[in-house]
Amino acid sequence: MRPDDVDGIQLDVRAAADYLDLPVSKLQKLLQKRELLQLWGDHQHLFRFDTSISHIDSGSVLQQKNGCFELIRGFPKIQRAMLLKPAIEAHFSDVETVCVEEKMNGFNVRIVTVDGKIIAITRGGYVCPYSTERVQKFLDIDLFEEHPELVLHGEMVGPDNPYIPKKIYNVESLELFVFDIRHKHSGIPLPLHERRQLAKEYGFTQVRLFGEFSKEEAPLKIREIIRELGKIEHEGVIIKDPMMEIAPLKYTCSQSNCADLKHAFKFYNDVGRDYLFSRVVREGFQAVEWKETSDDIDKRCLQLGRSILYPMIDSINDIGNGSRVADEVQMRVSSLETVSKFKEYLRRQGMETIFSEPEVAGDEFIVKIRKLNKSTNDKTLSMWKGETW
Amino acid sequence: MRPDDVDGIQLDVRAAADYLDLPVSKLQKLLQKRELLQLWGDHQHLFRFDTSISHIDSGSVLQQKNGCFELIRGFPKIQRAMLLKPAIEAHFSDVETVCVEEKMNGFNVRIVTVDGKIIAITRGGYVCPYSTERVQKFLDIDLFEEHPELVLHGEMVGPDNPYIPKKIYNVESLELFVFDIRHKHSGIPLPLHERRQLAKEYGFTQVRLFGEFSKEEAPLKIREIIRELGKIEHEGVIIKDPMMEIAPLKYTCSQSNCADLKHAFKFYNDVGRDYLFSRVVREGFQAVEWKETSDDIDKRCLQLGRSILYPMIDSINDIGNGSRVADEVQMRVSSLETVSKFKEYLRRQGMETIFSEPEVAGDEFIVKIRKLNKSTNDKTLSMWKGETW
Repeated sequence: MRPDDVDGIQLDVRAAADYLDLPVSKLQKLLQKRELLQLWGDHQHLFRFDTSISHIDSGSVLQQKNGCFELIRGFPKIQRAMLLKPAIEAHFSDVETVCVEEKMNGFNVRIVTVDGKIIAITRGGYVCPYSTERVQKFLDIDLFEEHPELVLHGEMVGPDNPYIPKKIYNVESLELFVFDIRHKHSGIPLPLHERRQLAKEYGFTQVRLFGEFSKEEAPLKIREIIRELGKIEHEGVIIKDPMMEIAPLKYTCSQSNCADLKHAFKFYNDVGRDYLFSRVVREGFQAVEWKETSDDIDKRCLQLGRSILYPMIDSINDIGNGSRVADEVQMRVSSLETVSKFKEYLRRQGMETIFSEPEVAGDEFIVKIRKLNKSTNDKTLSMWKGETW
Repeated sequence: MRPDDVDGIQLDVRAAADYLDLPVSKLQKLLQKRELLQLWGDHQHLFRFDTSISHIDSGSVLQQKNGCFELIRGFPKIQRAMLLKPAIEAHFSDVETVCVEEKMNGFNVRIVTVDGKIIAITRGGYVCPYSTERVQKFLDIDLFEEHPELVLHGEMVGPDNPYIPKKIYNVESLELFVFDIRHKHSGIPLPLHERRQLAKEYGFTQVRLFGEFSKEEAPLKIREIIRELGKIEHEGVIIKDPMMEIAPLKYTCSQSNCADLKHAFKFYNDVGRDYLFSRVVREGFQAVEWKETSDDIDKRCLQLGRSILYPMIDSINDIGNGSRVADEVQMRVSSLETVSKFKEYLRRQGMETIFSEPEVAGDEFIVKIRKLNKSTNDKTLSMWKGETW
């Protein structure tokens, strides 16, 4: 079975093309190439873009209802500053000040209402059943009833996160931190302070604002912030034009690069390669911009090497000793239906998982999930059996 | 102009297909897709395979002459042992002993006679004009007159190597070290001791043989050899079935991995990514097999981190200070015609180079070559100008 096969609702290609201002042939081609895909179950009237075309980013979702359409734009890719000073000068040349907010390490979702219900859409344009269940607790439907045109961009953060569980944020279970609010269809963001005001009004959690700085002082301020965030293993910052007319920039802590590598190299043959080069390059540029001494650089070298080699060595040894390495995460649900929906959701994405029996936790359930990283286990085992690389 | 465009000689597709035991349509498709490419200049009757198909490896060269054909088989890829003990046991299960020869770090060539002249063919199936000129000094035509069916596989090693210059081998200029001899067309290798005997008879240089070991003692012996080779920055070993009926295995020193990374990360955006993951993984497996203490592993971590970060930091700083990073190599030729042929050869492969004026060196000439690593220079410069990644 192809993962997104569904019966029933079909896309009205001609009307959709007209709404999206695209040629009909283009849309037909996307459907044929499975780059525009229908969701399943309750969301068969949603179609996700698995590629970027002309003015539509990958991850955008097209909603079809009674011959009408709505487009929920993909999450815009945030460019990375490698050297803070020149990047801020060049990128924000048209503004006087920049705001610095925290970049949190969690799971990225877009939250919208569809048919009057709040749903959480992943970066890839899927509706995540778990995030959708959880997000009902964090957001009031009033917000969307009064502002149905808004899309909230937020980070799902905390230990009960089956994607990126982190205990560093002092979140007990799971929390949504909103960092951006945009208009449906146009994708135009609210100005930063307006967004922060909205969060206060409607009482939802948002990312930390470190301050608004002149462009001249920003690089040094950000360096100080990054050093402090690094100490507590937080990820980094997003640098924003207060009016949000210029796209934001991201910048991260060395400790966060290394934490990513540590996790990636436990599963070196599944994700190690994808993580490695970019993070190594960031270390190089940061050392240069911060004019580090050879002692500082040596510390960085040791830290980098340790983040890569130790988790890999542990995995090779563990697998050699007969155990299997797995990513152990957990979810906390109020309805067991969410568990089966989430299981199906991961299965359709080709992920191999083992779900534990639900444990009662107050009025909710905890379900533990072992994600099998097949490639690392299989490859390492084959090496122990004497196969060659 | 497409790099391999030539006039004149055309491949007789029908006859070639018949000789290669391939369908005519297959060969036509290869030509259309430019996966079977005609060489230029003096070698228009040679056609190189830029892909592997059925029984023909990438890098194989088909010679057409007067309606007859000959196939010079591509250099067979040597599998890598990640864990010596299990790999030797499993891979060499049918033999009692293995021979261990040095794996040298140089430029890989296959040497054959074509039209009675000795030529050097690269891994990709090109005729390298420089290696071809040099190899005349190292090999006697007698060898090929008496054994026209042989293909010598050797490593061009030394400082006058425009590909991989190394001073570690105590070679003054350039030397050819033969490590394999195979039959044309069939690709069947000579038994190791027969090959070594031939080298003695015809007086050509060959790689070092460390010994022939029982399979039981081999892993420990190889570990000792690798430790010694590492100290002098040599690359590693090839483990061979003495009869050469089983394919050889390679195994390398940590110091050589790190030396590769040091070179690669000077040009991080050109070659860094390709080199990184595989070498990191080798470090992990070696540390496991050698049951290293955390002190040993820490040394490895620091060494690994240093090999990556310092050359990259130097390049970023150099480029920020207005200079450009380049790979500086040199060649030593007896004929200036070789220089122009080599320049054309690199140009056709899309390499940007600056050749110095030839300097007289005895009865030969030295030409220095700066290989511009455009991607690293351009990317780093753009970061200094404030562009984002």
